[in-house]
Amino acid sequence: MKAVVLEPGHKLALKDMPEPKILEQDDIIVKVTTSAICGSDIHIKYGEIPIPPGTIIGHEFVGTVVEAGPAVTRFKKGDRVGVAAGIWCGYCPACRRGEIQNCLNGAVFGGGLFRGKTLEGAQAEYVRAPNADMCAIPVPKKVPDEQAILIGDVFSTGYHAAYEGRIKTGDTVAVFGCGPIGLAAVISAHLFGPRRVYAVDVLDNRLALAEKYGAVPIDARRDDAVSQIMAATDLEGVDVAIEAVGLVETFSQAINSIRRGGTVSVVGLFKGFYQMPLPILGLSGLKLSIGLANLSFMGQLMGMLAAGRLDLSAFCTHTFPLSEAMAAYDLFENHKDKCLKAMLKP
Amino acid sequence: MKAVVLEPGHKLALKDMPEPKILEQDDIIVKVTTSAICGSDIHIKYGEIPIPPGTIIGHEFVGTVVEAGPAVTRFKKGDRVGVAAGIWCGYCPACRRGEIQNCLNGAVFGGGLFRGKTLEGAQAEYVRAPNADMCAIPVPKKVPDEQAILIGDVFSTGYHAAYEGRIKTGDTVAVFGCGPIGLAAVISAHLFGPRRVYAVDVLDNRLALAEKYGAVPIDARRDDAVSQIMAATDLEGVDVAIEAVGLVETFSQAINSIRRGGTVSVVGLFKGFYQMPLPILGLSGLKLSIGLANLSFMGQLMGMLAAGRLDLSAFCTHTFPLSEAMAAYDLFENHKDKCLKAMLKP
Amino acid sequence: MKAVVLEPGHKLALKDMPEPKILEQDDIIVKVTTSAICGSDIHIKYGEIPIPPGTIIGHEFVGTVVEAGPAVTRFKKGDRVGVAAGIWCGYCPACRRGEIQNCLNGAVFGGGLFRGKTLEGAQAEYVRAPNADMCAIPVPKKVPDEQAILIGDVFSTGYHAAYEGRIKTGDTVAVFGCGPIGLAAVISAHLFGPRRVYAVDVLDNRLALAEKYGAVPIDARRDDAVSQIMAATDLEGVDVAIEAVGLVETFSQAINSIRRGGTVSVVGLFKGFYQMPLPILGLSGLKLSIGLANLSFMGQLMGMLAAGRLDLSAFCTHTFPLSEAMAAYDLFENHKDKCLKAMLKP
Amino acid sequence: MKAVVLEPGHKLALKDMPEPKILEQDDIIVKVTTSAICGSDIHIKYGEIPIPPGTIIGHEFVGTVVEAGPAVTRFKKGDRVGVAAGIWCGYCPACRRGEIQNCLNGAVFGGGLFRGKTLEGAQAEYVRAPNADMCAIPVPKKVPDEQAILIGDVFSTGYHAAYEGRIKTGDTVAVFGCGPIGLAAVISAHLFGPRRVYAVDVLDNRLALAEKYGAVPIDARRDDAVSQIMAATDLEGVDVAIEAVGLVETFSQAINSIRRGGTVSVVGLFKGFYQMPLPILGLSGLKLSIGLANLSFMGQLMGMLAAGRLDLSAFCTHTFPLSEAMAAYDLFENHKDKCLKAMLKP
Repeated sequence: MKAVVLEPGHKLALKDMPEPKILEQDDIIVKVTTSAICGSDIHIKYGEIPIPPGTIIGHEFVGTVVEAGPAVTRFKKGDRVGVAAGIWCGYCPACRRGEIQNCLNGAVFGGGLFRGKTLEGAQAEYVRAPNADMCAIPVPKKVPDEQAILIGDVFSTGYHAAYEGRIKTGDTVAVFGCGPIGLAAVISAHLFGPRRVYAVDVLDNRLALAEKYGAVPIDARRDDAVSQIMAATDLEGVDVAIEAVGLVETFSQAINSIRRGGTVSVVGLFKGFYQMPLPILGLSGLKLSIGLANLSFMGQLMGMLAAGRLDLSAFCTHTFPLSEAMAAYDLFENHKDKCLKAMLKP
Repeated sequence: MKAVVLEPGHKLALKDMPEPKILEQDDIIVKVTTSAICGSDIHIKYGEIPIPPGTIIGHEFVGTVVEAGPAVTRFKKGDRVGVAAGIWCGYCPACRRGEIQNCLNGAVFGGGLFRGKTLEGAQAEYVRAPNADMCAIPVPKKVPDEQAILIGDVFSTGYHAAYEGRIKTGDTVAVFGCGPIGLAAVISAHLFGPRRVYAVDVLDNRLALAEKYGAVPIDARRDDAVSQIMAATDLEGVDVAIEAVGLVETFSQAINSIRRGGTVSVVGLFKGFYQMPLPILGLSGLKLSIGLANLSFMGQLMGMLAAGRLDLSAFCTHTFPLSEAMAAYDLFENHKDKCLKAMLKP
Repeated sequence: MKAVVLEPGHKLALKDMPEPKILEQDDIIVKVTTSAICGSDIHIKYGEIPIPPGTIIGHEFVGTVVEAGPAVTRFKKGDRVGVAAGIWCGYCPACRRGEIQNCLNGAVFGGGLFRGKTLEGAQAEYVRAPNADMCAIPVPKKVPDEQAILIGDVFSTGYHAAYEGRIKTGDTVAVFGCGPIGLAAVISAHLFGPRRVYAVDVLDNRLALAEKYGAVPIDARRDDAVSQIMAATDLEGVDVAIEAVGLVETFSQAINSIRRGGTVSVVGLFKGFYQMPLPILGLSGLKLSIGLANLSFMGQLMGMLAAGRLDLSAFCTHTFPLSEAMAAYDLFENHKDKCLKAMLKP
Repeated sequence: MKAVVLEPGHKLALKDMPEPKILEQDDIIVKVTTSAICGSDIHIKYGEIPIPPGTIIGHEFVGTVVEAGPAVTRFKKGDRVGVAAGIWCGYCPACRRGEIQNCLNGAVFGGGLFRGKTLEGAQAEYVRAPNADMCAIPVPKKVPDEQAILIGDVFSTGYHAAYEGRIKTGDTVAVFGCGPIGLAAVISAHLFGPRRVYAVDVLDNRLALAEKYGAVPIDARRDDAVSQIMAATDLEGVDVAIEAVGLVETFSQAINSIRRGGTVSVVGLFKGFYQMPLPILGLSGLKLSIGLANLSFMGQLMGMLAAGRLDLSAFCTHTFPLSEAMAAYDLFENHKDKCLKAMLKP
């Protein structure tokens, strides 16, 4: 089958690879109907997230079950499924605490080992998904692939950021970054009854989308984002700031934009060190939540999509046949002013 | 001044009463610009909530400060204010726990003593409001009286019911009763990101309003409400049921409409006893929250109104001059098919 | 092998039964080293919890793994294990919410079907335990059988009651009933930093144990329990009441013993109806939690036992060889003044 | 009256100062029976917390009411009272959220203005305490001054650190620093049912006290504290780390000692910047809470002391007459190996 494979020398290539087989009792084999390119894939390409060359990459996908292992009870051949980008065991201490993102046995598709066996990625025609009863969910008919696929990673990540921000009715929220995760955070923040959501970016298309989804756009090209947020909040700062860029600079802005005792919630991959000013924070107070997203909210969020409570139709700006994956990567990586999310159709 | 006064023999009358004066350092005197009739006023009229004849009734009001005691720091003459229907001390054990509705020193306007002094009601030209820094809030210019007035009692009560239901993203909710409090619960439930809100009533106008506010209407004249909810939820039941009628029958329906381990949240005044089936509930699980509303959310909710996040324009269906208060009472009590909320303009 | 089996006509008998075999990939076979008699077993005997005659009963046990299915990753032959009295699937909507006690696929040992196959009980020499990675936990060497066994059911049930009571630092707590679950609730309540725990019973041995575990004993033979609690709390009532008897009378007492806005937490099996006085509760407020126990706290509680933070040495008052199970049942059922918990050694 | 006064040039002196008078309706005048020296007083002496020379310092005190303003309802002449080190208004947005430590109108005794009037300190014979109904609490007879005084600042601060750590039953906890606040955190952590509390320090007397209060002492002179904690937790790290020193080094150690997704809770005054490693924390997860203590738990904690649930008898190692305040300061500042807390008796 065709698949996007990491090559030595920070390159990706479309190659012929063997089709996956059932290896464990609780595996399913999914015929991928749509897979998507994620910012992490770019990090993988450049070796910033180290995985072995020769691996099929891609961890965002939906598709149809073509085979189910004997221990699988929830899915059978022909079922439409979405699968979490990263899977978990369900019984380690982290999973028992409900922190499945910290699973001691977990792995990400296209990036690791699960129970000692390689978990190949999903930018391919078929993919093997273990522990399927736990880590996959049904996709209702009325939800199109291009929206359902977001539930397994991007949207859940933005939702997690909003959730960990512990937004309360009437709170003000600032979201730094209006890429796919930031936009997901903007939409998710509105699920918690905020008074106002501010959304910071430097690209017209992304600011326009944030506004469409109910936020007050803050154009950081025009003036310092923190100053604009302070002016908008009578110099109080926001109750909750969400960092969805992954840069030290925006992390610092998020911390500087909150009120005394406010919360900063961060999901993302970072480079560098932040110079944390302890005397200021010691007096003004800060609650900080940082870390990978908890994907166990997938079921509820898919339910929200199916019920029409979420509209994620604006995310997928481009689709390509899998055979043109390299063109899709170029667009996604180099034309953020046009492309929010590029998806592949095997 | 003119005021609505409880008379012996379960009657109300518009009478001439003395204007209130500052009695405590932290009092304000409010010139009432709008007061509203509440379901509790009908209970008071019929002696179901016992208060002494001769009392001015009415606990929902907004107005303008005409005088402020020397210890008041937040308000001055000319300020527009909303005041909580029931006031609290701020320092008793209940207030320290944040449960200001259980304040050991609290009282309701038109219904009791606060610090040993009668707290007269607000269906009048002027009203004295003690502990004003704590129990009053500013009303922003852009919020009309007819919506601001709801924050001090009716809307906060519906909000409290939704809050205590601990609605989570993706939950299903059923609200029993679409009177003013039920409708407030419908609107408030949507602030917590539910998948679906069902709203039960038997009057066309109220069901239509619930639908306008995003709920799926359940017409209990057509078929048993519990059966309809079960059918709509694949026989699972809802995650959260909110009781906003105050009858044993609807309380029982709320309990019967939840899923295993679901939550029932109740705000209201009741008559009678409920036959609680312990073996069933012991196996299926129930979380129940019952009691008066916590009005300390007023500030956040007024902020939501001012920000345009809440639209309460449908509540006030009728206004009358204070001089026609008796006609307003007749309409509110006897024509629920037309009147949701009747308000008085002194 | 020898096993305690339910016979027609509300009888139990020690019989020869076939040894269990691995039926599923994730099963373990446990050689039982200790099993215990639970109050539920008495309900089963009298048909109050209906199960088919011929079933091996008993759901409290610890033992040694003698065989593990191929999908089991955490346990191997020779490991000492404790298993939850009731098992769960881990992936149904209830399990995903963390409410494993409401698992849509769950079953209790000696009382039902799990994945369509009978789940025989543990008052026997061997028992089959499915979904072992999820529902079993290791038993550390230093923890004796007689204490470890409590974690799988009785102690977790009392803990759950205290947990759902949402006890806060400085709260007062009343526990109704000082049988095994009530005593577990007394001990567990102390894990949440209460100011005072009152423990109600009518038997000297049980009141003495409650006092040993830090509670103020309330002897309900001497005077009405509610009156004694009110007198002890300056007529305020307790913040949290825990019902651990399972009678309408004690349930009613629990509700009457709380302060305004207090919490009643109930775990247990009930007969009858409670006449819930809605007007009183509507004004005074009540939070109620009722339902089966969540056994997913097992791991943490076993950790507390191993660390010496819990001392459950007083629970097991009697041990019998399995061959004398009928004598153990007689003692447990008819001599509560002497016997708290009777255990069986195959 | 005699009082400890800040002098220019980073000095303190015992001076004659005018006795305080009632300035506001809700003031009380307290005859100080015990005041204590706090680490903050040393920071004030050296100008690290800037206050104007000539101010009476000291914010930890208990005493007897000698006069109460006309609006005070809870206290009268002769009552024994404890007062929070920092007072708050009760009605600003922060207070309404329950975050009284972030009160927009708040002030600390001996360090600021409250309602525009200087709030003099308590290392004196008398002190004026405003907003007394809100910020003072009764001291029960059986609680000695030397323990009651801790509730208004030091103990509540350590408690707050433990509370914000969100310790759950069975968690492991590390407390960095066993000075008065660290020791309070050790004691408080045990109120939340931890499996194990590790306590780090470099002084024998303080490690011995931490052990006496139930912690496992970690002597940081012997080996790196983080290594010792990792070794003790099977290289997993603790669930919760509490920083009670106020140095960048120990803050860094706290962050390095937690498990994936663990919590760091910090109360204290800091110098310097922490180099926060974003890529590591982005992958491993961190919940951080930093800021001043919420003193509104005072009432519950005094209740715990009165009930014998807390024993704070080890804190006060030295008492001096107020006239020997300078000797007390010397001991407290320069002999931490002997002195935990020095108190003054006017």
